[in-house]
Amino acid sequence: MAFRLEELARRFGGEVHGDGQCLIHAVASLERAGEGEIAFLSNVHFRRHLAHTRASAVILEPRFAAECPVNAVVTADPYLLFARIAQALHPPPPPVAGRHPTACIGQDCAISDRASIAAYAVIGDRVQIADDVRIGPGCVVEDGVSIGAGTVLDANVVLHRGTRVGARVLIHSGAVIGGDGFGFANDRGRWIKIPQLGGVEIGDDVEIGCNTTIDRGALGDTVIEEGVKLDNQVQIAHNVRVGAHTAIAGCTGIAGSTTIGKRCAIGGGVGISGHLEIADDVQLTGTTFVSQSITEKGVYSSGVPFEPTRSWRRNFMRIRQLDDMARRLAELERLVKAIRDSHETTGET
Amino acid sequence: MAFRLEELARRFGGEVHGDGQCLIHAVASLERAGEGEIAFLSNVHFRRHLAHTRASAVILEPRFAAECPVNAVVTADPYLLFARIAQALHPPPPPVAGRHPTACIGQDCAISDRASIAAYAVIGDRVQIADDVRIGPGCVVEDGVSIGAGTVLDANVVLHRGTRVGARVLIHSGAVIGGDGFGFANDRGRWIKIPQLGGVEIGDDVEIGCNTTIDRGALGDTVIEEGVKLDNQVQIAHNVRVGAHTAIAGCTGIAGSTTIGKRCAIGGGVGISGHLEIADDVQLTGTTFVSQSITEKGVYSSGVPFEPTRSWRRNFMRIRQLDDMARRLAELERLVKAIRDSHETTGET
Amino acid sequence: MAFRLEELARRFGGEVHGDGQCLIHAVASLERAGEGEIAFLSNVHFRRHLAHTRASAVILEPRFAAECPVNAVVTADPYLLFARIAQALHPPPPPVAGRHPTACIGQDCAISDRASIAAYAVIGDRVQIADDVRIGPGCVVEDGVSIGAGTVLDANVVLHRGTRVGARVLIHSGAVIGGDGFGFANDRGRWIKIPQLGGVEIGDDVEIGCNTTIDRGALGDTVIEEGVKLDNQVQIAHNVRVGAHTAIAGCTGIAGSTTIGKRCAIGGGVGISGHLEIADDVQLTGTTFVSQSITEKGVYSSGVPFEPTRSWRRNFMRIRQLDDMARRLAELERLVKAIRDSHETTGET
Repeated sequence: MAFRLEELARRFGGEVHGDGQCLIHAVASLERAGEGEIAFLSNVHFRRHLAHTRASAVILEPRFAAECPVNAVVTADPYLLFARIAQALHPPPPPVAGRHPTACIGQDCAISDRASIAAYAVIGDRVQIADDVRIGPGCVVEDGVSIGAGTVLDANVVLHRGTRVGARVLIHSGAVIGGDGFGFANDRGRWIKIPQLGGVEIGDDVEIGCNTTIDRGALGDTVIEEGVKLDNQVQIAHNVRVGAHTAIAGCTGIAGSTTIGKRCAIGGGVGISGHLEIADDVQLTGTTFVSQSITEKGVYSSGVPFEPTRSWRRNFMRIRQLDDMARRLAELERLVKAIRDSHETTGET
Repeated sequence: MAFRLEELARRFGGEVHGDGQCLIHAVASLERAGEGEIAFLSNVHFRRHLAHTRASAVILEPRFAAECPVNAVVTADPYLLFARIAQALHPPPPPVAGRHPTACIGQDCAISDRASIAAYAVIGDRVQIADDVRIGPGCVVEDGVSIGAGTVLDANVVLHRGTRVGARVLIHSGAVIGGDGFGFANDRGRWIKIPQLGGVEIGDDVEIGCNTTIDRGALGDTVIEEGVKLDNQVQIAHNVRVGAHTAIAGCTGIAGSTTIGKRCAIGGGVGISGHLEIADDVQLTGTTFVSQSITEKGVYSSGVPFEPTRSWRRNFMRIRQLDDMARRLAELERLVKAIRDSHETTGET
Repeated sequence: MAFRLEELARRFGGEVHGDGQCLIHAVASLERAGEGEIAFLSNVHFRRHLAHTRASAVILEPRFAAECPVNAVVTADPYLLFARIAQALHPPPPPVAGRHPTACIGQDCAISDRASIAAYAVIGDRVQIADDVRIGPGCVVEDGVSIGAGTVLDANVVLHRGTRVGARVLIHSGAVIGGDGFGFANDRGRWIKIPQLGGVEIGDDVEIGCNTTIDRGALGDTVIEEGVKLDNQVQIAHNVRVGAHTAIAGCTGIAGSTTIGKRCAIGGGVGISGHLEIADDVQLTGTTFVSQSITEKGVYSSGVPFEPTRSWRRNFMRIRQLDDMARRLAELERLVKAIRDSHETTGET
């Protein structure tokens, strides 16, 4: 697959400087790109590589165009244009339609002839699988699940009963969707399980990372709205709702019944308590702990800066004295004010 | 499956107000319940839904009985009674006994005729599987493992050699029990593996979440006592012991050789260092970091409150100055006291 | 398998005190060891068990030799010697060479006759598998992957396209190597996927824990250098490089394009932001959050000490006032100095 530079610009945007007839067949980094490859520059940190690049073309902002030694595609957002061009040059390998002879398929299913089901996949009864779906090897899809057109399950993915997946969803290997939520009542020290009776609804164009887990609702559903992107090892508890086009980085956990707004950007290792509401357009930096609702859009943090362990030991133990320190500080202010007032009275500075 | 309201109360507790003959076939939420469904009210936050409920009956505390517009079951602990009634109305689907023809089973196993083994499960040699066990699709059970009556393994669960599982245990999809502990000796910068020779012992009535991992002991066993509930993506290292009826929420990690007491409640994202002892009845709120043993029951925390990133940047960098601030505060107190003492001497206020 | 004590010392080091002809067939703990078993003492905490041990021999330091009631092997590093002796006494079970009849193998593969492939493993096209490799049940190895001699994949491991694994690597159950990195460009609120085109390169003698995930590079590779040890549920994002002989404990996440040095020791639950450089020989204690590069070797921390929730509530809310407190403290110092200066001028103490 190769395109003329001018064709790429016509289809995806940007203005060609240099030879629009130049043939491009792959993307690569500024440092490593060679003949026939297109690179991009979006972070000023990598500007130093521009002068030496051997790429056939570079996607960049107008401010760097003058110093580009090769063909350029000039655009306001090089990273976005790079994404579109990379998708065109590197489409996913076309799935082989059809069912592997070892795929184990239940009764009363509605499976498109254009779907592909790999070796050792296990599909339950009454499952609906639309066109161009790809079910990877070792996947387990339980009774009654529905999967929209163009959705891909990588290897060893599990979709439990009550899961409904939209179109063009990408679920990476080892993800488990629709396991029981963590719900128990306590009976004199023993835990009595609350049957988890809801499902999981996943909108269109969602991506779910490797070994990520999303629990079914207790009553009602857990909902992942359209366009949401979840990284690896994210944990979404029962009855959570994640708003459309929100992105959540790896190792983040969201406790039960919390609602996350639309277009949020949530960093890695974040923890969000249960029964909260997070507004639209909220950003949380890495390892932030959210134990109260957030009603205003904005950027929030609680990650604690590291230091050498020796001084950490001294400084962090002081956190336990902070309230005491704050009170003593206020008392000192009162005393010093009293001293100064008395000095003024007695005529001192 | 349906029950008269009075029968539910007779079997599980509570006092019926209204029509005890009313037929109940399902549980639902206060907001969504309709004809034949029973809801519950245990959190005052949802009281506003009570007046409008269309449920056939509501489980609630005596203080809300007067305002219930429909049949009621009155009890001191509505959530617990709801759990029992929900279990009765929504039993898990009965497993189909027998071995799927693709299940791959080793030699010298003792497998109950009443056990169910799903497609593509792989069972090693000398495995013992008791009555009513259900092994899900894609599970791997290694040589010599024993599984007690009524235990369920969902899909793609792995039980390594040396694992002994009690009765009525529920292990969710993707969990891995009995992987090697993380043990190495260092030889001039290189890591030399310590063979992990112990096993994992899991008591009765334990629940283990999706993609949770529990490592085998190095010497001796890792032990999960009866009634313990582990959420998704929990990590239990080698030679840990978790006391009976303790619950641990998602994304929590417990390092090697630590002992957790009985009836503890451990929040999500908690980290507990190795070789510690945590007393019985300890509660840890979300994202708490425990680096010392806890000898007294009680509630403990170290989760750091978030704030807007702009002020976070200013405030959190100051943590590195805390010890210095504390010393300066003490010095100021000394100086101010000296000034006040001298004022007293000289007759000032 | 059994060895004379003197043979163990000759092969692996240490000086025998007592009967070198004594036969040893297993390792065990000081407390539990019996006839024919060898224990070790490396932590002074366990010294109290030495007097009562029933082990046939104990590996220990010179300072404890005099009080050992049984045969001893004296060495400067008992834990390291124990590791080597335990490896000799407890070798992993020899794999059965050959392919299970249900293993599903693609075209144009180069698979050693001495490799073992278990039930329901799925191997793609053009895969290279060297001598003595063991592929566990339910593993998925995609097209073009190469696996070096002596490497072991436990159950349900996934190796995606573009993964190259060295020799003597041990990958535990449920690990996923080579899933897509988390890369998106934003187009007016919608996420546009950046195709992830790189691979994962894993050096010799690496160990990778259960359910750990390592993403493929976006452009270029994610690299795990030789001798690296990763615990369970570790997340390594795209284009990360982990330096040789670094060990990373469970639940740690490393964001994209970060480089970790050689011989680092990274505790559990650590979070490291993207695009950072961590020097060689850095140690990070548990739950440390690293948001800046570390250029000097040393030990670093940011884990926050816990306290009873009641005082935690008071103290931790004060963190939000820290900057204000620091400014007020400085102002008080200024005022107190002014008062003292004026006292000196006026002749007071």
